[in-house]
Amino acid sequence: MSEIAQPGSRVSIALLHHPVYDKNRRVVATAVTNLDLHDIARAARTFGLFRYYVVTPVEEQRELAQRIGRHWLEGYGAGYNPKRREALELMRVTPALDDALAELAREYGRPAKVVVTGAQGHPGSVSCADLAERLKCCGDPCLLLFGTGWGLTEEVFARADVVLEPIRGPGDYNHLSVRSAAAIILDRLLGNR
Amino acid sequence: MSEIAQPGSRVSIALLHHPVYDKNRRVVATAVTNLDLHDIARAARTFGLFRYYVVTPVEEQRELAQRIGRHWLEGYGAGYNPKRREALELMRVTPALDDALAELAREYGRPAKVVVTGAQGHPGSVSCADLAERLKCCGDPCLLLFGTGWGLTEEVFARADVVLEPIRGPGDYNHLSVRSAAAIILDRLLGNR
Repeated sequence: MSEIAQPGSRVSIALLHHPVYDKNRRVVATAVTNLDLHDIARAARTFGLFRYYVVTPVEEQRELAQRIGRHWLEGYGAGYNPKRREALELMRVTPALDDALAELAREYGRPAKVVVTGAQGHPGSVSCADLAERLKCCGDPCLLLFGTGWGLTEEVFARADVVLEPIRGPGDYNHLSVRSAAAIILDRLLGNR
Repeated sequence: MSEIAQPGSRVSIALLHHPVYDKNRRVVATAVTNLDLHDIARAARTFGLFRYYVVTPVEEQRELAQRIGRHWLEGYGAGYNPKRREALELMRVTPALDDALAELAREYGRPAKVVVTGAQGHPGSVSCADLAERLKCCGDPCLLLFGTGWGLTEEVFARADVVLEPIRGPGDYNHLSVRSAAAIILDRLLGNR
């Protein structure tokens, strides 16, 4: 099967640092975390995704993310660990979700479906298994949104074409890191089990 | 179903900082990474595991891990974020794999099966789906081993009762972070899909 036929080639992921809630449900912009860039880029590369967008409206934070990317793409890191380069090649740093959506619309010639994730249940949410089936049979590109901090705001959920069910274990503890949640969801959607 | 009947209650996870390979396949002890403690503890708690062992022979590194744990269990962090406390309650810091196995043998009254993970294929490895079935029907406790650095040494693989298949996406890139790999494997073994 050619790379273009893989469902992952129509899937991108975006990590939003704004608008997200803090622990008191105030809307904030969180700081970029180095391992969010690496872990999610490596998972995105593993599962054959098209792009990994790191979204923050804070210019200094975008510069930090770009600098980390350059270290592994062009700097000392590129020779030290080429596998990190391969992963971070997928990364794009943008000020807002709309920039990511605009780029995807240009790339695919049609708008990407917005798939929103979160730890809280939402009415009408769909399972990863259902979305995985849709990805296999439907050519629409999609952008999976993950939030930092205490999660994406209702304003982001209101833009969703699809809301994914939260990841649940056997109990009621559902406080995975965003790195872990992204890895699990990409595996559920695109992994070879 | 009671907590004790959950397959996860017989599963523990250990993150080994030694003996692991570095990029030149020398056997080394790696440094403790803060987010390894948090992410894997949160995933372990989500999927109902019994224990999370952080294993390093370096005393200063054990002290660092303990100090991070205490911050969230007793210090400022316990009040600031009780969900991290709930996760880090599962964590035990030990000098060697044998200490973890000895504790599990005492707890369960019989030895735990050693399940080794890695990014490279090994002859006779089993799939997560097969191990998940065994966990449902068989009462044996088991300890999942994950390696830091460039992965667990052959000496550790030689002790395995079970070697798990590597996680694969559609391509040949298999360089997930240990945090992502642990999250995916716990989900494959114990997640409600």
